[in-house]
Amino acid sequence: MTQFEMDPRFAQATTFIADWPVCRVLLAEDARYPWLQLLPRCGFVTELLDIPREQRLLLMEEIALACEAVKKIQPDCKLNIGTLGIIVPQMHIHVLGRTPGDPAWPGPVWGHQSEAMVYDEKTREFRVAIVRSLSPKG
Amino acid sequence: MTQFEMDPRFAQATTFIADWPVCRVLLAEDARYPWLQLLPRCGFVTELLDIPREQRLLLMEEIALACEAVKKIQPDCKLNIGTLGIIVPQMHIHVLGRTPGDPAWPGPVWGHQSEAMVYDEKTREFRVAIVRSLSPKG
Repeated sequence: MTQFEMDPRFAQATTFIADWPVCRVLLAEDARYPWLQLLPRCGFVTELLDIPREQRLLLMEEIALACEAVKKIQPDCKLNIGTLGIIVPQMHIHVLGRTPGDPAWPGPVWGHQSEAMVYDEKTREFRVAIVRSLSPKG
Repeated sequence: MTQFEMDPRFAQATTFIADWPVCRVLLAEDARYPWLQLLPRCGFVTELLDIPREQRLLLMEEIALACEAVKKIQPDCKLNIGTLGIIVPQMHIHVLGRTPGDPAWPGPVWGHQSEAMVYDEKTREFRVAIVRSLSPKG
């Protein structure tokens, strides 16, 4: 791993959960969705193609693990996975759960104009603990 | 591979490009964006977690190859990758190129209310040929 610096905007809008072999795992500060963000830590990455093949394969397994975590938090959700990088260029992969009737349904959460819901401490800790209970085979 | 049946909505809105080891590769019928869709062919898949690990790793390489293809079509683009599956449940991974000033910029193309631009035959064939010139190591 080369040096890893996180765009300060992530610190404002997320809670740190863990550093997995390839990615930093963050909880998006919006209690309306079980929503993780994975930041590849191999230097400053903006595109999937910046990541060497070997780490890309580990990344896929980390994305799958994040999917498992979201499903544990909200078993009946539909997973949405996406990486856009237009507003915040540093590569981050969103993995989140959607349910009928959520504020952005059936559209994407990205670009949806509505206010995030602040977490109560207990719910945030519950979600963080679920993600921490899973660990990549790395 | 078990049987693979494609939701008829894809045939309406895309052009067939190729069958790669894991995915069927389609060109979205919207000339405004270099836009591919990858449909995993391992049975009826709605979530990444439905795909066995070994094929998931091949899928990552096919996504990376689709990224390369989009970058060949439009070198200065920002890649967007996403899978949502709320409107059309059959899993399909969007890989497309964005440029400042495109109709949905800086929002996501998913859920953006605007009319697709019909391809002229030559541009469609050019894009299809670029994707076909790349092949996965499988």
